[in-house]
Amino acid sequence: MTWSGRFRVPTRGDTHVVDISDDVARLVTSSKIRNGIVVVFVVGSTAGITTTEAEPGLVNHDLKAFFERIAPRGEHYHHEATWHDDNGHAHVRASALGPSLTVPLVDGRLTLGTWQQIVLIDFDTRSRQREVVVQIVGE
Amino acid sequence: MTWSGRFRVPTRGDTHVVDISDDVARLVTSSKIRNGIVVVFVVGSTAGITTTEAEPGLVNHDLKAFFERIAPRGEHYHHEATWHDDNGHAHVRASALGPSLTVPLVDGRLTLGTWQQIVLIDFDTRSRQREVVVQIVGE
Amino acid sequence: MTWSGRFRVPTRGDTHVVDISDDVARLVTSSKIRNGIVVVFVVGSTAGITTTEAEPGLVNHDLKAFFERIAPRGEHYHHEATWHDDNGHAHVRASALGPSLTVPLVDGRLTLGTWQQIVLIDFDTRSRQREVVVQIVGE
Repeated sequence: MTWSGRFRVPTRGDTHVVDISDDVARLVTSSKIRNGIVVVFVVGSTAGITTTEAEPGLVNHDLKAFFERIAPRGEHYHHEATWHDDNGHAHVRASALGPSLTVPLVDGRLTLGTWQQIVLIDFDTRSRQREVVVQIVGE
Repeated sequence: MTWSGRFRVPTRGDTHVVDISDDVARLVTSSKIRNGIVVVFVVGSTAGITTTEAEPGLVNHDLKAFFERIAPRGEHYHHEATWHDDNGHAHVRASALGPSLTVPLVDGRLTLGTWQQIVLIDFDTRSRQREVVVQIVGE
Repeated sequence: MTWSGRFRVPTRGDTHVVDISDDVARLVTSSKIRNGIVVVFVVGSTAGITTTEAEPGLVNHDLKAFFERIAPRGEHYHHEATWHDDNGHAHVRASALGPSLTVPLVDGRLTLGTWQQIVLIDFDTRSRQREVVVQIVGE
């Protein structure tokens, strides 16, 4: 059995980390699927999905500092010359993180840890309305 | 229902980024599965799969510069002492990126964004024929 | 058809890389599912899953050096101020790597390369008993 849902996430961009665990869990409940796998996928090439402990230190500071270290905003990016825009670092960060996450669903619950939330990270340089697809395969 | 396909990708190595979206889409059409999930998996430990906007700036320059920054080719790698080869950085980059990507399939279409292509990145230090497995589960 | 299994992995923490390929393969055999996809997911926010060639150079040295370069232990992390602990770098590394891996299952075998093993990397600053969920969907 396959079930598909979508929701939108308003972001501020600039490596904004948004906890979307409740949105995903609500769709899982709607699906009535109890056992299987849940794919969380963000549409677009300047955002990604992962898990973290959603506390202010990591969400507002440490993850931003990490991505700034590995793909600094101030570097020269050829992408920006191509399109005359300013988000080369955002593309690179998004490709490195990846747009999707797959989580087991067992007896109606995602197998996340207590301190492990699903987050969308928006690397773009402006506010966005992000579209997230939740695809569930199971029974 | 499960469907499995494979295709080969010739690469130049050296962080060659190859757009494989059309290859994946062709197999999805062949499968006749319309709703489910599509797993794209590269066999081997010196390549990875992700998404990006497949334009020349990112593909030919920015992603290469990023991987060179986080895992420089010129560093000392113990792997190279073990095997007397030169691709320690390739292994490290591949493990960081990961070998697989999972994309929702809805009404016969992958839910990618307009500027979001599926790419294989080959980090090895020589030309390779890469094998990609496309596994589809759905209905 | 969906099948779910779990196993525990004792780790030393400190970016300990553990080859869990045999554990995963054993559960795949138990499931009796022959074709589908296998999701390997680690519970918790300071560990991740990927593939690598599981030889001593990469496992004991090069991957550790890589993560120390991109998210150094000695940096200031706001997470540590929040909780008065010492594992901010472990959270950041785990979010970057991701907690899950999806591998195709074809005719009873994972489509891994000969030199490609599934590894759990524990970034925490102490020994842990890690819980890994193996979720299989197929037929």
